[in-house]
Amino acid sequence: MYELGVVYRNIQRTDAKVADALAAFGSATVHEAMGRVGLCKTYMRPIYAGAQISGTAVTVLLQPGDNWMFHVAAEQIKPGDIVIAACTTDNTDGHFGDLLATSFKARGARGLVIDAGCRDVKFLTEMGFPVWSRAISSKGTVKATLGSVNVPIVCAGALVHPGDVIVADDDGVVCVPRAMAAATLDAATKREANEGEKRAKLASGVLGLDMYKMREPLAAAGLKYID
Amino acid sequence: MYELGVVYRNIQRTDAKVADALAAFGSATVHEAMGRVGLCKTYMRPIYAGAQISGTAVTVLLQPGDNWMFHVAAEQIKPGDIVIAACTTDNTDGHFGDLLATSFKARGARGLVIDAGCRDVKFLTEMGFPVWSRAISSKGTVKATLGSVNVPIVCAGALVHPGDVIVADDDGVVCVPRAMAAATLDAATKREANEGEKRAKLASGVLGLDMYKMREPLAAAGLKYID
Amino acid sequence: MYELGVVYRNIQRTDAKVADALAAFGSATVHEAMGRVGLCKTYMRPIYAGAQISGTAVTVLLQPGDNWMFHVAAEQIKPGDIVIAACTTDNTDGHFGDLLATSFKARGARGLVIDAGCRDVKFLTEMGFPVWSRAISSKGTVKATLGSVNVPIVCAGALVHPGDVIVADDDGVVCVPRAMAAATLDAATKREANEGEKRAKLASGVLGLDMYKMREPLAAAGLKYID
Amino acid sequence: MYELGVVYRNIQRTDAKVADALAAFGSATVHEAMGRVGLCKTYMRPIYAGAQISGTAVTVLLQPGDNWMFHVAAEQIKPGDIVIAACTTDNTDGHFGDLLATSFKARGARGLVIDAGCRDVKFLTEMGFPVWSRAISSKGTVKATLGSVNVPIVCAGALVHPGDVIVADDDGVVCVPRAMAAATLDAATKREANEGEKRAKLASGVLGLDMYKMREPLAAAGLKYID
Amino acid sequence: MYELGVVYRNIQRTDAKVADALAAFGSATVHEAMGRVGLCKTYMRPIYAGAQISGTAVTVLLQPGDNWMFHVAAEQIKPGDIVIAACTTDNTDGHFGDLLATSFKARGARGLVIDAGCRDVKFLTEMGFPVWSRAISSKGTVKATLGSVNVPIVCAGALVHPGDVIVADDDGVVCVPRAMAAATLDAATKREANEGEKRAKLASGVLGLDMYKMREPLAAAGLKYID
Amino acid sequence: MYELGVVYRNIQRTDAKVADALAAFGSATVHEAMGRVGLCKTYMRPIYAGAQISGTAVTVLLQPGDNWMFHVAAEQIKPGDIVIAACTTDNTDGHFGDLLATSFKARGARGLVIDAGCRDVKFLTEMGFPVWSRAISSKGTVKATLGSVNVPIVCAGALVHPGDVIVADDDGVVCVPRAMAAATLDAATKREANEGEKRAKLASGVLGLDMYKMREPLAAAGLKYID
Repeated sequence: MYELGVVYRNIQRTDAKVADALAAFGSATVHEAMGRVGLCKTYMRPIYAGAQISGTAVTVLLQPGDNWMFHVAAEQIKPGDIVIAACTTDNTDGHFGDLLATSFKARGARGLVIDAGCRDVKFLTEMGFPVWSRAISSKGTVKATLGSVNVPIVCAGALVHPGDVIVADDDGVVCVPRAMAAATLDAATKREANEGEKRAKLASGVLGLDMYKMREPLAAAGLKYID
Repeated sequence: MYELGVVYRNIQRTDAKVADALAAFGSATVHEAMGRVGLCKTYMRPIYAGAQISGTAVTVLLQPGDNWMFHVAAEQIKPGDIVIAACTTDNTDGHFGDLLATSFKARGARGLVIDAGCRDVKFLTEMGFPVWSRAISSKGTVKATLGSVNVPIVCAGALVHPGDVIVADDDGVVCVPRAMAAATLDAATKREANEGEKRAKLASGVLGLDMYKMREPLAAAGLKYID
Repeated sequence: MYELGVVYRNIQRTDAKVADALAAFGSATVHEAMGRVGLCKTYMRPIYAGAQISGTAVTVLLQPGDNWMFHVAAEQIKPGDIVIAACTTDNTDGHFGDLLATSFKARGARGLVIDAGCRDVKFLTEMGFPVWSRAISSKGTVKATLGSVNVPIVCAGALVHPGDVIVADDDGVVCVPRAMAAATLDAATKREANEGEKRAKLASGVLGLDMYKMREPLAAAGLKYID
Repeated sequence: MYELGVVYRNIQRTDAKVADALAAFGSATVHEAMGRVGLCKTYMRPIYAGAQISGTAVTVLLQPGDNWMFHVAAEQIKPGDIVIAACTTDNTDGHFGDLLATSFKARGARGLVIDAGCRDVKFLTEMGFPVWSRAISSKGTVKATLGSVNVPIVCAGALVHPGDVIVADDDGVVCVPRAMAAATLDAATKREANEGEKRAKLASGVLGLDMYKMREPLAAAGLKYID
Repeated sequence: MYELGVVYRNIQRTDAKVADALAAFGSATVHEAMGRVGLCKTYMRPIYAGAQISGTAVTVLLQPGDNWMFHVAAEQIKPGDIVIAACTTDNTDGHFGDLLATSFKARGARGLVIDAGCRDVKFLTEMGFPVWSRAISSKGTVKATLGSVNVPIVCAGALVHPGDVIVADDDGVVCVPRAMAAATLDAATKREANEGEKRAKLASGVLGLDMYKMREPLAAAGLKYID
Repeated sequence: MYELGVVYRNIQRTDAKVADALAAFGSATVHEAMGRVGLCKTYMRPIYAGAQISGTAVTVLLQPGDNWMFHVAAEQIKPGDIVIAACTTDNTDGHFGDLLATSFKARGARGLVIDAGCRDVKFLTEMGFPVWSRAISSKGTVKATLGSVNVPIVCAGALVHPGDVIVADDDGVVCVPRAMAAATLDAATKREANEGEKRAKLASGVLGLDMYKMREPLAAAGLKYID
């Protein structure tokens, strides 16, 4: 976060098995499982519906209106990574488009999270390269000023270290710190274990009031029913 | 609006025939038909395109980041209802997801309108439970503080009483007060009666200027044509 | 921009061959080709994904909550035009819907760009009439106050003269001044010429760092790699 | 809220003693005292710092860009009233300025709350007529379309009935329903009673942790201290 | 608007007598007098209250996060000018501070209008150099990329040509085109002529309803009084 | 950032001499001096103009609508500290008011930075306790859910560790990491050293173009003057 003009080449990625396994749970369950922290703000939206991915973070700190560092970042991508980019100032220019997506995909990236704008969304949709961004913009960028690659960044309010796990889907984007990833996977697995049973009960018409035994605490809190 | 911790069990729902019939007209025509009032602000957007519903309002007043009242509300839902929720403070957390949707649907709800965030949008889309919300967010909520069910609420700027009719589609959400519902249905029916004819004329190239006889009032208002 | 209550009937449209040819390049390439100017702000979004059009501008200056001028504008539309509308005050009401779209399409319009709200988006989507707007709203409008047709307007931050070329797609909306259109088409054609080759190289794993010979300038700018 | 083109002349104002007495407590204490409801959203800001008023509501429903109803409302003002205005669509035009302020003040109004724009703020500041608004704008308005006076309105998210009490200061604007005003005054008075004592203790260095006996509940909630 | 990297040295300034005389009327009256056009959006706010100026426009087109062009613009300033700056992308960085203000003031500038951020507001306030901006930000800028000086710009939605008159005060910023300046001054003078009389009447308790003879048109529009 | 329910008691504060000395330079100069990083977003504004402070950070992570942790934080304050608070969700409620300010001041705090709302601004202004916040709101908060004290937080986009230096004034808020504080003080001192001389030159009419020797690089970048 505090270094400009540097590229860290040797980052410690979260174990691939853990990082890959988190995708299936989705951002909402993962966010719960890790204790309700690490979420990007809700202005970060997918450019198309339906993608659900997880992977290890390659971080990029961009200058506004300048996408030079994405070319530097491409070389640092390994299969299974997700590139996640912050910008030194709020900016909506289209820092990312078809050519970079082609390059990132060739390097093995699973998607991009960018706290700025992207473009060529039709092409990105067709090629199936998912992007979560704060804006979509035709406005291109220059290649003039240094940012950094693989430094800690704050992306849409979430602190991300290189090698952390990123989980992104239609609900949003969550960052799981490397040190918490295995425990989060465990917790998420446990959370999901009895979801099917709960869902079946609710689908049959059982009330959450009864299933979760809420009537007593609600009464204790003072809830009054009026006929 | 001014009561916290209460649930009204016996609400007067708009006649089901009227409430159901309004869906076909859509929010724009209904809004015109009732005199251009009762609209939620435009930040309320559907989580997927194409749903068009109407139904009787079960109202919920939520505390921010707390979805306890939704479990209480589930018990009050009758087939044909739409749940509509306000929040005591602007908040984007995901107060509603797959389990609650399963429960609401089992109770007969047709959809949800929530002036806060929702999550599990992929699941909601697949199960066909439409939601109109101000945000989508992975962030879950607690169950700790009382709101109310079936009190009057202000949802995205619109005043809603329990039992009113909610009409929601891709264009937005409108609330028709119970006392105005039948008259609104009549007015909407009349509006639509000659829409087909108008559309055919316009499609054939007739100008609205002529069809609506606007040339004279435009000239009277001072419009000048310059060659 | 400074005239209310006037309609210019004889506008100088950009040559149709040039105006039509720009659609294929999309707003991002056209924006680059004309020197990175002329873009509408990013709050202008298409009501459905996938449309990509270009055409000559018929401009409309609306009063907020009043769509009278759209009926006046319909008569000025020629096949190949795109209607582009500004509003004298920020406003999100639904100034445009199914009937006007039917009329505009019958007159030969290819789409609408409106710095205000539109409605009937389901119908517009089904009929394939693309609209870029700042909002979607059920709220209808009156026909009471004069604006203008075919005067210069500022639409979402972009200055547009009647007869200019509008290029709009999923990435946004760009306005190409008539005097720059032919040169922009040339520049866009040249930009695209070697895009396929670049894309193939990047897809094969070649790095932009090498393809664009960036390593030296990055080093000169002070970039440091840390192992 | 649902009637356009009407003026209610005989409204039931909250007892003047109660309405007047609430000013001294300020909006924050009054809001607490009435159970944390009835607050305008935080985008409503005073045009100058330091005013703190209360009074009985004369409500106005405006059309966007049209201030005709303010002239109608002036006649309905009685000494001790505060005019509070909503708008049928979000709008920032300057609906209120020096002449209307002169008239309102002459009629006995104590201030204005407007969910739209106002202008002539220098003049309003000099004459000491406080306004809370969502925007300041030079843009004037027309007098062409009917709204209403003394109907229930939703102003910046708060439901207001004519005759309710409005309390406004640097912290914001709160509406106290007529039926709750006396009880709210009592509750506010009690809240304030021991504030001075608390403040003195805290000023002397006593911790809220001890004064409010929070250490035990914090420990029960699981708070951990780490050295 | 469409040229980057150019400085126009010989601009046609509005006659100084006219430009100077408009300040006294303020932005609201001037905006009315010129037909309600040419206003900057309401997000443009003064950094301190009370300044009221007019002058001839020296226009600047900035690149985001780059204030190089302000140094170029300084040389083009003549006594009586107001510098007005747009930015090629929405940006809030502090492009302007104490040193530039010192230089601009020394050259005879009366103030700055900037559709981006400024900083050193305490210093600017103390030295009495008024600025209207969209943001205040400590973030400094680089001097790396060319914009333009004295080209037409769109500043906060308003089209400004070099030499036009800028009028700015607590209510906002309006741009009067050179060709309309003299007529606008006349119209403003006439508007003000009978304002004093009106104000006196209203202050004495006369209603606008009577003074403006509104009762009949209100009745004609359908206004109903209910006792 | 990733721990809820913890209080770190022994934090390493930046050396007081360094922390205190930074106030005099203001946030803009400090931000430049540390390499243009660490700034809070521009929506963080002072509740009154003119305060300029620096001090060591006591960090607080709040739950939305809950100010319990402020009472816990009070005990951790030492003279010379500035309390800086983030919130787990965007929220504008008034988490801080007169009583907490009294307590914080008694403990030696110099001010508060809060990425949420505050209230009692009149009182805070009178007692001279400066607050930078994202909103002002009468809405009070509960004391129900645990956050943390003295964990790393992201406040308005800036990463803050306990013990870092906070510098806040009318231009905004910047966080200087403890490890960079001494070097930043040096750099700021050097920057200021020749500011007076520059200012004098510019005040005498010397152009920045000449003082900074910009004419040549501008020409090299392609700037063209047109007469």
